[in-house]
Amino acid sequence: MNIVIIGGVAAGAKAAAKVKRLLPDASVKIYTRDTHVSYSSCGLPYYIQGNFTDYTALLVRSVEEFAQAGIDVYLNSNVEKILPIQRDILVANSYNAELVPYDKLIIATGASPVIPEIKGIKYFDNVYTVRTIEDGINIRNQMLKSKNAIIIGGGYIGIEILEAFSKNGLNTHLFEKNSHIMPSLDSDISLSIQKRLDKVENKNFTIHTNEFVTEIIGENGKANKIFTSNNLEYDCDIVVICAGVKPNAELAYDAGIEIGETGAIKVNKLMRTSYENIFACGDCAEKTHIVSGQKVWVPLGSTANKEGRCAAMNAAGIYCEFEGVLGSMVTRCLNTTIAMTGLTEQAAHKVGFNPVSVIVNKFDKVAYMPDADEITLKVIADKVTGLLLGAQAVGSVGADKRVNTITSALLGHLTVEQFSSNDITYSPPYSPTIDPLLNAMQILCNKTSRSC
Amino acid sequence: MNIVIIGGVAAGAKAAAKVKRLLPDASVKIYTRDTHVSYSSCGLPYYIQGNFTDYTALLVRSVEEFAQAGIDVYLNSNVEKILPIQRDILVANSYNAELVPYDKLIIATGASPVIPEIKGIKYFDNVYTVRTIEDGINIRNQMLKSKNAIIIGGGYIGIEILEAFSKNGLNTHLFEKNSHIMPSLDSDISLSIQKRLDKVENKNFTIHTNEFVTEIIGENGKANKIFTSNNLEYDCDIVVICAGVKPNAELAYDAGIEIGETGAIKVNKLMRTSYENIFACGDCAEKTHIVSGQKVWVPLGSTANKEGRCAAMNAAGIYCEFEGVLGSMVTRCLNTTIAMTGLTEQAAHKVGFNPVSVIVNKFDKVAYMPDADEITLKVIADKVTGLLLGAQAVGSVGADKRVNTITSALLGHLTVEQFSSNDITYSPPYSPTIDPLLNAMQILCNKTSRSC
Repeated sequence: MNIVIIGGVAAGAKAAAKVKRLLPDASVKIYTRDTHVSYSSCGLPYYIQGNFTDYTALLVRSVEEFAQAGIDVYLNSNVEKILPIQRDILVANSYNAELVPYDKLIIATGASPVIPEIKGIKYFDNVYTVRTIEDGINIRNQMLKSKNAIIIGGGYIGIEILEAFSKNGLNTHLFEKNSHIMPSLDSDISLSIQKRLDKVENKNFTIHTNEFVTEIIGENGKANKIFTSNNLEYDCDIVVICAGVKPNAELAYDAGIEIGETGAIKVNKLMRTSYENIFACGDCAEKTHIVSGQKVWVPLGSTANKEGRCAAMNAAGIYCEFEGVLGSMVTRCLNTTIAMTGLTEQAAHKVGFNPVSVIVNKFDKVAYMPDADEITLKVIADKVTGLLLGAQAVGSVGADKRVNTITSALLGHLTVEQFSSNDITYSPPYSPTIDPLLNAMQILCNKTSRSC
Repeated sequence: MNIVIIGGVAAGAKAAAKVKRLLPDASVKIYTRDTHVSYSSCGLPYYIQGNFTDYTALLVRSVEEFAQAGIDVYLNSNVEKILPIQRDILVANSYNAELVPYDKLIIATGASPVIPEIKGIKYFDNVYTVRTIEDGINIRNQMLKSKNAIIIGGGYIGIEILEAFSKNGLNTHLFEKNSHIMPSLDSDISLSIQKRLDKVENKNFTIHTNEFVTEIIGENGKANKIFTSNNLEYDCDIVVICAGVKPNAELAYDAGIEIGETGAIKVNKLMRTSYENIFACGDCAEKTHIVSGQKVWVPLGSTANKEGRCAAMNAAGIYCEFEGVLGSMVTRCLNTTIAMTGLTEQAAHKVGFNPVSVIVNKFDKVAYMPDADEITLKVIADKVTGLLLGAQAVGSVGADKRVNTITSALLGHLTVEQFSSNDITYSPPYSPTIDPLLNAMQILCNKTSRSC
């Protein structure tokens, strides 16, 4: 049994390890274009910041560890074609080409940074994206000799890099073309993030919304100035592009594998593609949203792990279903934790719910505790059924706790009424007597058609 | 309409405020033996510690604020009898006695500390319980002039006082007669709490298990030495009794109001007692456990608030059900957060489930993050149905997050299999790629009869 895996960061690495444990006698091979395998790309902003200084901490399993487990890893290996009929992949390095046969193929080609159409964006060495180990090393090295930084995009990678640069004393300008940073959240919540960031002490950064970079100029291969849509210019020693990612689905598309409406590879609950013996998992694969039932593309390392495991099990002949995602995320920018799960109010409207919502601003613990901090919590429910649809929270450490409490409620299809009697933990260092979650539910109860 | 409330700490205060809002024309009176009304007794250990120095921060609403809302508060007022047939209560101060008529009565008499049978325990001024504002003020004042402290009991109040004394530099001995501190948890989890506390730097306390105080001696009204069941003796300048609490149900019992099997006042889902127009709520009332369906007595401020609200609504003629509790709790002792929800493994056995469990020891965030700390998480499920029954966690800040994620799952009656695909939030500062919760569920899946 030949099992071939394309890609080896999160989903691919997990799938390889799992399938080899299930089928010890199978040949398991990972082919990746990357110079590294099995690493935490989510950790790059924290390596750049200097939370730890040895980048090898990001590596989960080395090539040698894979070899010891009987898994062959081929780094710097470009897979040029998938040939589903003859069950081969075409691997081409600069010096040779090879057909590698497979019985089961697992595609885990991940995602790539979106490069916006900005004049000069491709000309300079000090303009980076944040995806690979090399990106991390290069950005950190350049950051350490930089004074002025530009970040293009205010999504979660953008604000994580903002934290890194701010902590390292750089004077940073972040540009978000939408009206708010974190545009995947509802705008009222995005606004409360900006309000908190405005209160950071010794603020050495500026967030520009409704503004984008139009041109990058420089000399000797180094960018030194950018121009913006507001006809302003800013000096820079480093530019980081955080304008989102797109699924690496071309290889699959070229092979005739069906692509979903989101642009990612279409899979069923078994992570199987339109070809019986080809699976896809991780950032290259489309997902089902558990609340809306609709197809979505939410690329995240935690999902990649689950999908990699599920793809491996089915490839090994053991039935496993992956139900889908809730779109849950958490991130941090300086004094602020940002978390969400389920549908935003905007998304709930789009998919046909009749959403009602509430925003509460409360202390995250009893107000007399010395480190009590505000939390802004938004909860969204369907007006007619009272069904919980999603939540977003902005605050200090407790924001992700509230959102995770909602994830299980979404999984269990709880209504606002049911949740409002939830016996969540209480003690002054951890929560007010009436938790913001329960506070929100009590208010939301009155907005739904079901009384509680 | 005369509404009378006996007790005014949490449930009573909440009920009074709510019922007055619902029935602005009603007469609402609170009678309490206490010298204060509407305060956070859960905050006393943090006041004693010195997290804040003004005890009035513990007061939620003052007598004046109640008066402004049209609610009369009678402090230092001893209710001697409830007379359900004639619908009066008998209030007796030292100087007079008065019959106060009611149309609806809400009993919120709370709980009292258990005083163990220890020779000399009642003779000394510097032997305290932790319940009222005065207790807090007295303990703090005595602590500030003490070197050696004794804590009797290792439940959550005991370990919270231990934190307070340790942070204030006292040399403290805590005695727990059971084999582990936090005896309401499973013993394997209690043990992991002790292991963490053993690692505290500059440890100035000793936890004695399987040992109890047998005698307290002293002179001039001050205890100065205790003797233990191991025939040892310890000097002391302060002794705090944290040996649990018991419901204040005598007044109700004497009036012929039905008492439940737990010793607390029996109520239905509407918080109604065996008398149509008498309600009970808070620490004096019995609760229903949502997972087991059985009657339990878990006295907690957060539950008191919910029950007070529900009792007030029904007293005002607005239908409201209180479903019950999950037994959720969280507390902190120095470097350790301890949280639980649902049934312990031991309790699950007792009520007839066939529990299986798993304990995982994992980092609470990605290991390369600078403040990564271990979390010990136990999850319990029913072997036959796969139904989640409960969870306990010990660790740093993230322990309560994991437990709260389970509370909603218990409320939604999720199985291990369903939970194992939960899309909980992930980012290196907040969670490893595979959260300890999901890790535990994957292992637990293999122990239940349902495959996943």
